[in-house]
Amino acid sequence: MRVEPATIEDLPALTELVMDLFAKSGDFSPNRSTQERGLSLILEQPSRGRIFVLRNDHRIIGMVNLLFTISTARGGFVILMEDVIVHPDHRGLGYGTKLIEYVIDFARQKDFKRITLLTDKISAESQNFFTKHHFEYSSMIPMRINLD
Amino acid sequence: MRVEPATIEDLPALTELVMDLFAKSGDFSPNRSTQERGLSLILEQPSRGRIFVLRNDHRIIGMVNLLFTISTARGGFVILMEDVIVHPDHRGLGYGTKLIEYVIDFARQKDFKRITLLTDKISAESQNFFTKHHFEYSSMIPMRINLD
Repeated sequence: MRVEPATIEDLPALTELVMDLFAKSGDFSPNRSTQERGLSLILEQPSRGRIFVLRNDHRIIGMVNLLFTISTARGGFVILMEDVIVHPDHRGLGYGTKLIEYVIDFARQKDFKRITLLTDKISAESQNFFTKHHFEYSSMIPMRINLD
Repeated sequence: MRVEPATIEDLPALTELVMDLFAKSGDFSPNRSTQERGLSLILEQPSRGRIFVLRNDHRIIGMVNLLFTISTARGGFVILMEDVIVHPDHRGLGYGTKLIEYVIDFARQKDFKRITLLTDKISAESQNFFTKHHFEYSSMIPMRINLD
């Protein structure tokens, strides 16, 4: 089992994982071509982000999607972490931890100043997981406007 | 009074505005060189974001900072809107609305799929302002880890 950057060959497997995540989320309805387009954009532009996968010799077990942006609060590059997914058949085995530890190590090495994620308000399991990995709540709440 | 892209000459005024915002926020302590560095990075890399200012012939009255990233949920480019500021001496005159309407128009024209902002949980005034401009709450909460 190893973590490594995703390639364009991984696109179908990544699309499945993200659609599965969105199907369980309150905020988004899955749409194959939409998710595929978003994932492709990231894979094609490594300056904007990186997708890491957890895989064995046969298949992809999990993924995480990192987007790179700039923070005026932190005075440098920061990461938005999205789509942190472990395949339902492989949960409870520490693979999520393996992914997150890889991400934090990557971020420190590349001198990113912060990692932010948006987690589901109602998922205690998800919040406990990130708290265990030293993520903290903030006094901010997200608001959004969709433009199409 | 007009809205236009900020230039590097605006850096001292932008730094003052952002430091003033952070001084009032629960999440960040202002630091001149940190804020200046973050703002410079954005001004130097227009592919990563854009800062718009509201100015008259004499000075900058307000600003907004847009960061461009990619969404797998929306299948395209999206905007993170930060540092929406109107100078304290010029509030209540509709300048915030002027800025936000400019941003939404810009985002639609450039085919961005969504605008997300993080607003202060405790500021009803700020939340009312964005609700009036059709921003909606989501079921997500942000969690963060600082890396230095």
